[in-house]
Amino acid sequence: MTQRTYRFQVQVYYEDTDHSGVVYHANYLKYFERAREGVISPDALVALWKKKGLGFAVYKANVSFLDGAEFGDTLDIISTVRKDSDYRLVWQQEAWRPGAAKAAVQAEIHLVCVDRAKNLKPIPDVGLDFG
Amino acid sequence: MTQRTYRFQVQVYYEDTDHSGVVYHANYLKYFERAREGVISPDALVALWKKKGLGFAVYKANVSFLDGAEFGDTLDIISTVRKDSDYRLVWQQEAWRPGAAKAAVQAEIHLVCVDRAKNLKPIPDVGLDFG
Amino acid sequence: MTQRTYRFQVQVYYEDTDHSGVVYHANYLKYFERAREGVISPDALVALWKKKGLGFAVYKANVSFLDGAEFGDTLDIISTVRKDSDYRLVWQQEAWRPGAAKAAVQAEIHLVCVDRAKNLKPIPDVGLDFG
Amino acid sequence: MTQRTYRFQVQVYYEDTDHSGVVYHANYLKYFERAREGVISPDALVALWKKKGLGFAVYKANVSFLDGAEFGDTLDIISTVRKDSDYRLVWQQEAWRPGAAKAAVQAEIHLVCVDRAKNLKPIPDVGLDFG
Repeated sequence: MTQRTYRFQVQVYYEDTDHSGVVYHANYLKYFERAREGVISPDALVALWKKKGLGFAVYKANVSFLDGAEFGDTLDIISTVRKDSDYRLVWQQEAWRPGAAKAAVQAEIHLVCVDRAKNLKPIPDVGLDFG
Repeated sequence: MTQRTYRFQVQVYYEDTDHSGVVYHANYLKYFERAREGVISPDALVALWKKKGLGFAVYKANVSFLDGAEFGDTLDIISTVRKDSDYRLVWQQEAWRPGAAKAAVQAEIHLVCVDRAKNLKPIPDVGLDFG
Repeated sequence: MTQRTYRFQVQVYYEDTDHSGVVYHANYLKYFERAREGVISPDALVALWKKKGLGFAVYKANVSFLDGAEFGDTLDIISTVRKDSDYRLVWQQEAWRPGAAKAAVQAEIHLVCVDRAKNLKPIPDVGLDFG
Repeated sequence: MTQRTYRFQVQVYYEDTDHSGVVYHANYLKYFERAREGVISPDALVALWKKKGLGFAVYKANVSFLDGAEFGDTLDIISTVRKDSDYRLVWQQEAWRPGAAKAAVQAEIHLVCVDRAKNLKPIPDVGLDFG
């Protein structure tokens, strides 16, 4: 039984870099979220929010920054996800630069589900494939 | 009768710059909004939103970028505001680098007031001094 | 003789919205730049920077915000560009929400070309079609 | 022998929130960096970069998001720092909402020092008080 691996691409734009010449570290969290939203689909997330008042929130993020992506890079965001409990999704996510031998950034991101009043709710079914 | 001039300082951080070495152009719009929020006061804006369901929205922004601010700069944001009609505030805002002879960025920003459903509402009294 | 119209899509993510529920106004400037970079191609821009030390800089941005895009929207960014002089490109850019009858945001963006020392340089040939 | 505790305040602006009504999670990394830059001083960081070609880079960030800050909050960023080796600073940082009984966000941030070519360099003396 193997986990499904999801692939998503992000383009590094001017807005993402800082004056040191590489992507500003906080922006990888944005890339990882775009990838998760791409996996689940924006439409499913919009429906979840509008119909049920539910959204995902990042509860924990452990991130290692090993290499710096540059303007013009197309990054591969590689993601797997498991359901750690009824209340928590754990994503393993990596950002890869073109042709790289190892990931530039590695992250473990824990998500919970909350309603509009920020109360914890069980993880809803959004079609994720847990293997 | 003279307009009141408001002064507000912003610090340029790593996050604000891009790989060309200067502040990313869109971030001046953030600086100008921070300055407007500083002038009106966050507390007044929070009260307006929570009690009356009203918020300001940018309707038009005409911005000239004349010089590039760098990491470490403390910028002076100089603002004046006039009420153009019952439904529109017009801000003149400039960002000045330390010791500069002219503004780095100049902007005219038009604000309207909208309710939660995005309907246009008359500009509420938030204590602005129109001179 | 007609100008070429360029089309580019951007997805609205959580990161783009603010607590009023719609896209934060400054982020449209990011969308428009992503579209311009998409039109010219990141590779061409990287080569221009690395080989010739040249980059484009926004000199003027006149933006009208007519409607608010929401999380989950896929926006069409419609762009045309003309060369106003040897030293200036003028882009007309619009952001359209799905199925909308009019543009949500309209902008005229003036670009100049600068070297690493921020000196003005003639607009280089980057394969734009001026019609 | 006790570590020095540094305090720094950040104001939550519109730009920091997302459509769920609270601060977008990646922005706490920006707040923590602003606090670190405030502790070290922007002038010292600019001098380090311009004179020695050195800068700090985030190598690891472990962040727990326990509560959501809202627009209008003035957050206290509480920081301590230790030198873990000649090549690594470890910051413990927390973001506190006004009047809160516990931190909203807790982080351990590992910094390294790199030159312009991204080679690892020993941590330079920037006046930090390690207790």
